[in-house]
Amino acid sequence: MILMISYREPLLGKTDEMILKYISSIKDDTAIVHEVLEVLMAHVQHLMHKNIIPQNIGKKITEILLELYKDPSPLFSMSVEDVHEAIELYIERKIGKDAGWLAIAKSRNDHVVAALRLKVKRLLVKLIDELLKFRALLLQKANQHLETLMPAFTHLQPAQVSTYAHYLTYVEEILATYTKLLLFITKEVIDKSPLGASAATTTTVPIDRYELAYETGFKDLVVNSIVATGSRDFLAIASAISTCLAVFISRIAEDMIIFSTPQFNYLNPDSRHLATSSVMPHKKNLVTMEIARAWGGEAIGHLTALLSILKALPSGYNLDLQEATKHCIRVLQETINTLTIVKDFIEKLEPNTQSMKRDVELYPITSTELIETISLRLCKPYREVHRKLALVIRSSKSFKDALDKVFSELGVYFLELKPPIEPKNSIYAKNHPGSPHPLSVKNYITKAEKRIRDEYIELDVMKKNSKNPILCQKNESVI
Amino acid sequence: MILMISYREPLLGKTDEMILKYISSIKDDTAIVHEVLEVLMAHVQHLMHKNIIPQNIGKKITEILLELYKDPSPLFSMSVEDVHEAIELYIERKIGKDAGWLAIAKSRNDHVVAALRLKVKRLLVKLIDELLKFRALLLQKANQHLETLMPAFTHLQPAQVSTYAHYLTYVEEILATYTKLLLFITKEVIDKSPLGASAATTTTVPIDRYELAYETGFKDLVVNSIVATGSRDFLAIASAISTCLAVFISRIAEDMIIFSTPQFNYLNPDSRHLATSSVMPHKKNLVTMEIARAWGGEAIGHLTALLSILKALPSGYNLDLQEATKHCIRVLQETINTLTIVKDFIEKLEPNTQSMKRDVELYPITSTELIETISLRLCKPYREVHRKLALVIRSSKSFKDALDKVFSELGVYFLELKPPIEPKNSIYAKNHPGSPHPLSVKNYITKAEKRIRDEYIELDVMKKNSKNPILCQKNESVI
Amino acid sequence: MILMISYREPLLGKTDEMILKYISSIKDDTAIVHEVLEVLMAHVQHLMHKNIIPQNIGKKITEILLELYKDPSPLFSMSVEDVHEAIELYIERKIGKDAGWLAIAKSRNDHVVAALRLKVKRLLVKLIDELLKFRALLLQKANQHLETLMPAFTHLQPAQVSTYAHYLTYVEEILATYTKLLLFITKEVIDKSPLGASAATTTTVPIDRYELAYETGFKDLVVNSIVATGSRDFLAIASAISTCLAVFISRIAEDMIIFSTPQFNYLNPDSRHLATSSVMPHKKNLVTMEIARAWGGEAIGHLTALLSILKALPSGYNLDLQEATKHCIRVLQETINTLTIVKDFIEKLEPNTQSMKRDVELYPITSTELIETISLRLCKPYREVHRKLALVIRSSKSFKDALDKVFSELGVYFLELKPPIEPKNSIYAKNHPGSPHPLSVKNYITKAEKRIRDEYIELDVMKKNSKNPILCQKNESVI
Amino acid sequence: MILMISYREPLLGKTDEMILKYISSIKDDTAIVHEVLEVLMAHVQHLMHKNIIPQNIGKKITEILLELYKDPSPLFSMSVEDVHEAIELYIERKIGKDAGWLAIAKSRNDHVVAALRLKVKRLLVKLIDELLKFRALLLQKANQHLETLMPAFTHLQPAQVSTYAHYLTYVEEILATYTKLLLFITKEVIDKSPLGASAATTTTVPIDRYELAYETGFKDLVVNSIVATGSRDFLAIASAISTCLAVFISRIAEDMIIFSTPQFNYLNPDSRHLATSSVMPHKKNLVTMEIARAWGGEAIGHLTALLSILKALPSGYNLDLQEATKHCIRVLQETINTLTIVKDFIEKLEPNTQSMKRDVELYPITSTELIETISLRLCKPYREVHRKLALVIRSSKSFKDALDKVFSELGVYFLELKPPIEPKNSIYAKNHPGSPHPLSVKNYITKAEKRIRDEYIELDVMKKNSKNPILCQKNESVI
Repeated sequence: MILMISYREPLLGKTDEMILKYISSIKDDTAIVHEVLEVLMAHVQHLMHKNIIPQNIGKKITEILLELYKDPSPLFSMSVEDVHEAIELYIERKIGKDAGWLAIAKSRNDHVVAALRLKVKRLLVKLIDELLKFRALLLQKANQHLETLMPAFTHLQPAQVSTYAHYLTYVEEILATYTKLLLFITKEVIDKSPLGASAATTTTVPIDRYELAYETGFKDLVVNSIVATGSRDFLAIASAISTCLAVFISRIAEDMIIFSTPQFNYLNPDSRHLATSSVMPHKKNLVTMEIARAWGGEAIGHLTALLSILKALPSGYNLDLQEATKHCIRVLQETINTLTIVKDFIEKLEPNTQSMKRDVELYPITSTELIETISLRLCKPYREVHRKLALVIRSSKSFKDALDKVFSELGVYFLELKPPIEPKNSIYAKNHPGSPHPLSVKNYITKAEKRIRDEYIELDVMKKNSKNPILCQKNESVI
Repeated sequence: MILMISYREPLLGKTDEMILKYISSIKDDTAIVHEVLEVLMAHVQHLMHKNIIPQNIGKKITEILLELYKDPSPLFSMSVEDVHEAIELYIERKIGKDAGWLAIAKSRNDHVVAALRLKVKRLLVKLIDELLKFRALLLQKANQHLETLMPAFTHLQPAQVSTYAHYLTYVEEILATYTKLLLFITKEVIDKSPLGASAATTTTVPIDRYELAYETGFKDLVVNSIVATGSRDFLAIASAISTCLAVFISRIAEDMIIFSTPQFNYLNPDSRHLATSSVMPHKKNLVTMEIARAWGGEAIGHLTALLSILKALPSGYNLDLQEATKHCIRVLQETINTLTIVKDFIEKLEPNTQSMKRDVELYPITSTELIETISLRLCKPYREVHRKLALVIRSSKSFKDALDKVFSELGVYFLELKPPIEPKNSIYAKNHPGSPHPLSVKNYITKAEKRIRDEYIELDVMKKNSKNPILCQKNESVI
Repeated sequence: MILMISYREPLLGKTDEMILKYISSIKDDTAIVHEVLEVLMAHVQHLMHKNIIPQNIGKKITEILLELYKDPSPLFSMSVEDVHEAIELYIERKIGKDAGWLAIAKSRNDHVVAALRLKVKRLLVKLIDELLKFRALLLQKANQHLETLMPAFTHLQPAQVSTYAHYLTYVEEILATYTKLLLFITKEVIDKSPLGASAATTTTVPIDRYELAYETGFKDLVVNSIVATGSRDFLAIASAISTCLAVFISRIAEDMIIFSTPQFNYLNPDSRHLATSSVMPHKKNLVTMEIARAWGGEAIGHLTALLSILKALPSGYNLDLQEATKHCIRVLQETINTLTIVKDFIEKLEPNTQSMKRDVELYPITSTELIETISLRLCKPYREVHRKLALVIRSSKSFKDALDKVFSELGVYFLELKPPIEPKNSIYAKNHPGSPHPLSVKNYITKAEKRIRDEYIELDVMKKNSKNPILCQKNESVI
Repeated sequence: MILMISYREPLLGKTDEMILKYISSIKDDTAIVHEVLEVLMAHVQHLMHKNIIPQNIGKKITEILLELYKDPSPLFSMSVEDVHEAIELYIERKIGKDAGWLAIAKSRNDHVVAALRLKVKRLLVKLIDELLKFRALLLQKANQHLETLMPAFTHLQPAQVSTYAHYLTYVEEILATYTKLLLFITKEVIDKSPLGASAATTTTVPIDRYELAYETGFKDLVVNSIVATGSRDFLAIASAISTCLAVFISRIAEDMIIFSTPQFNYLNPDSRHLATSSVMPHKKNLVTMEIARAWGGEAIGHLTALLSILKALPSGYNLDLQEATKHCIRVLQETINTLTIVKDFIEKLEPNTQSMKRDVELYPITSTELIETISLRLCKPYREVHRKLALVIRSSKSFKDALDKVFSELGVYFLELKPPIEPKNSIYAKNHPGSPHPLSVKNYITKAEKRIRDEYIELDVMKKNSKNPILCQKNESVI
């Protein structure tokens, strides 16, 4: 029985441990071992179905692949280039040279990328799932705070009157864009089989690439075999959009951190999300939000790593591509984790409505409403009134003082004009889609809930499709 | 007549030149001035239509905006924060304080982003147009080289037999993915109006945000007013995907550079794409491809800049966002330029078929075909044959020599097995979708041409929609 | 007279305008044209001095170079690859084919990089100069605020009692590290002449590379001619450190923005640094600090661009290197601008001492001091006291309340222990180097002022050395 | 005995596992656990020495710290925020609440960064060590190949005649710059103690920060306590320069890959550095160089991550800083690994001198030498001769043919001029420092060897200093 002969040995001789350690991906392969095994099972089934390999050998190999699927740990104590070599050697150790049938009509180049596409598809499905849950929560919370006044900020200075519901639906609308885009990418970019491309130019063996694709759980085919094996554009695209999402989440984390300073005091975060100091017992630090904020920066770094690896790389498979994988998986996995955490943070959070209200009342943030009213009622150009008010504010001690001056100067009375300068009036005076007006927000929520329901249906189809047919037969759950 | 009073002056007093220079975006605003003016025209029309501003004033303002549209140069000699302030002051200089009506029911926050969305839409339309043209060219060239043999490379080493047509359709298939994705993004992410969001929370003025959107040339609305003014996720998304595309193009540029070394000598580039040395008159340098390769790296940098600006930025408009704009516009514009150049390079290029053929014959790159044949015909596991051949190659002087040894060891004759080890036979023996088999490639080309035709139709609709309705009325072409 | 024959024409024929526009660096060359001319003057002088070119021709060429030095504008209306070609053609237009002597014993490869090294050296000298001025200002301001109490923050939560002087010297100490490092890099990495390396392997012409280096204003030589022409590590290093500095400055800008919110209200920024809204006349936005904050992100992007261009680039000059230049120059120039602005911001700033004091008194930020006192006086392990106090704070309404409970539980009296829990006492109880204790800070200031004086002397030597000897002879100022 | 009470529990109550997993650094802390323990030992010794804690307790704690130093594994099975909490709880489990003395006069904020500075110092020492060894090897190899002709490339096209020694010393000279810079950074930026800064403002406990620094193995002090705890500029600086180095190495890896294509065939890499295909037994792939090339891109990504985390982070410690650590350690560790591999690659490499020679003879790469000779001997401007030769080359079939035409046109004979156009003559005709002339290279090698010896001495001092004094006493080796 020929055992433990590495791919390299017959042609190139003994392996050097230092070098193997440098080039081996075995440590990173733990993340995709299940997908690698599923792809191999589909491959073997297809070869049996097409009578390319002996049925009894195909069965034996499949059994071992299933065993490894349940417990892949034996693979990770071997000195090998990657999990593909480990699996082949493991099977050979069990059944001898019949294991060598596994290698026909495939290469690592197409199998690596098939497993990777399956893995990325599943991570995207999870990410989309988290997005949908988070959005549903945001809408539900918004519903409870339609009239909870809060300043809208520009330049981190109180700008206008808004509501907590308006803030929450702001977050939801952006997440909705990412959901839609990620659904599209999953379907149109990721969910394609590279199998049968073999090393670079397909194979002389009479397989059927489309059948093999469907049997592995893919919806479509990467056609050209150089694309199939040598392109990682799908990885770049999935990582790029997830990174944009992570960067957006970092902005929300920053909001949470600033709003939770004692100076702002807008939020009462759940104590589970806080940590304290090892020496200062009064400290309540928003550590989860800090990690979520940092993750925005880290995601940028992983995307940069992935793109810089690809930049100017000669076409076709190069081992550089192996190093790209981990950056994409990390971006997806950690963005999922971060969404889960931020969702939990907001779910458990109680806004401190008194402090928010204090600030909408304290600062002159309804000046625009005042100018609009004067401009329209007295038919004076907006800019003219704006300049006058600016000058008056400059020389006044308070907004109240400024108001008095403006009205007296204009010769009109506040009661005549009824400008919506009380915070609550201000939001009710803006009856536009997308405004903080409670009915506008309510209306938005209704439509958004409908969208989420539709997207859940779409996602469920995807989830079903991404199950491995062979494992399903055998009643194994995959995701 | 009140003239040249900056936004800041009434409240904050005189402007400091050093500081104005540091914060002003006026230099970068040249790129979007036409879009800014179009948005303002639509705004004024809407205000007139809704009887919010006096008709005669609206007309006067519109006339001046049209003048500036034809020649915006007067705006760029003014000391201002940005083009918005410049336009307002310019109009005021012309018609006095009636110009102040322009400022109602808007703010820079929503108008900046509206112009930016229009600009990005148009750049994406151009980018997609270039992609479609490039893809059509690649297919046409591929059609001429279905049987032009060429090695497929992995690890920059000759791997298997392929054709120039196979290489060209590899490029096309990846560009097709980017086309589809960019069409989706243009429609679903970019083409939405933020107008009416005003500073942060919409306005008390009775405009109609949907009507205004359509009149400005947008298909849909960014609903939430904080999203509309404070999010640049659309910029990040457009830049991210375009950067992935630029990185892919850098790989093709690298191929061209390596294939054009005298050692490879696969290509005869058109001399327009070459430059020589200022001192070495024998040098023929592939300078356009070097710039295209470098651009891949630069695009990564601009994307990183944009994302790092956004990272952890508090929600709502901050002036940081102003600095993000230029990076997106640069990514889109220069990726368009690079596509045009690389398309021209490949269009004018003559492959040196003799050198390509030399290499498919020189190296033992049909060993996989040999192993597949032996394995299937003699019913021996692939790996077993693979190892044997590897050992034989290791101890042989040439592939010919190795073949002799293998056949004699197996006790079979070459003529019996007829393995497809002649390069031409090799490609004909791989009758799979995506293989270099001339019929497979031909078949792909037919389908791909159909896709391009469909996408041209889709793009034409987009082009029509992105024209500004007011300018169309006035018979001005926009794009 | 042979006129306007480009480098490419004799070998490669006519120029294509689209392609020339794509590859030409002429627009970016405005930034280094003076350095290019200086290098050429030194080159010509050296050739004359070594009797390699005729004296009268050398003189004529030098005169034209000096003319161009005074007004380089004619160079930028020419259709050329770069400023080097423009200069040569310009001189040829003036004096005919004698201009062709300029080209001997040089190439663009060594002259491009020589000009670039001069430019980078000068930008670094300016950057160091700004750092020294900023540091001097910080120390002077700190001296005025040795006892101005202010919270030290961790996790953006008030952590312990500090002073405004302590904050200012924090900034100074970090800037001191960058100063020292940049001085070293300027001297040991940048200030080396690549001249004489010519295209890649020096020249057969009997020049003296060391003499030429000194005559051009360099202190030392890049020895190996491939390093001299094909390496941009010096650009990467200068950009990398300047980017780290820009990122640090972005943290200070963020502090300024947060401290200037009305909720914190720690700072009264000079109104020159504020802008207002075009529609909300109450807004006072910290726009300079926002641009400074954004610059941190942009610098990361430019560094990434530069490094990604270099990544995996084959050795020797490639045109990719041309594209790297602009990113380094932008990083240096804009970091200088940003330092100037932030320095001005802090110089004109008045801290709002009342708000700072309010916060050190409002929050229980001397709990560590209390635990330390109890632990040492009662000889109880720190952690035990820490836990007890944490539990007590958890169940107390105020720090005062917690104090009462702790003392009563421990059976000791406040007066006995005299823990330094009054904010002012707290800082006086920490008599360590680097603490906010006024004497510690004062002591630091004295030493730091001495360092600045020493570094000014070092910088002055550098400034003198970076003047071009020829221009000095001719009484032209260079920097 | 109070056991396993986390820092958070007394103030904030129970820990949530999901959240702990999200914020905990315990997995990454394996990389710095020894440094953390050393810092704690020095801390305890200092407290004993200053009679701040009871001697017997100090001794007991030190014993346990030493145990953990030998086997830290028990720390990594605990559910904790980080290794600091794990150590404290571990000691408490062993000796009860006396363990609580460990916590006095310190915080995690200063101890985290002290361990990190020690770790970074040691990694830099290793990196410098590798650089010195690599440089010594390059010089030694160069010595053997002073006359091994090889083309120098620009634009990846053969440009001029060079030697393998010239190429090797090119690599050495750049590595020498990095060595010098990293030595400076290690001494002047990294090797400073933050200890005693405690949480943010030092402590009321009477320690001596300078003594403590020396006892921990630091050469100097980070003075300001906010710098000490809240700055990661030292991490950014060390990572930035190491990334520039990694990017340079990626260029050398790219050279190796291109030079090892069969088309170039310049190199015979040692088979240990090759891998083959799992299906194509003829493939010899340069996998180590591909990983080294990819690492250049990955390093850019890790640097970007680190800098983006820091960008706009409020001053003082934030948990974001915890996430920065891993990126720096990864950059340093993997750059060390990559240097080791590339050094081994070049050490075991045999250049294929025949192929290199073939190429210097095949292409007209001595045209510059020809022009220089004609220009000087016939006193004709360089450009004039250059243009003539370019035109002639354009219309000639070979360089030989071009030469004949040029000489006949000029009316001179080759034998009269003796231009150094034989490759070997070409290098001997360039007697400048930094040229490929064997004596120039030899001369460089002598000086460079001297520099390496001096730097080894400097490094040895550093190595000695970075040993932990306490462990030295106890005869434990640290590095």
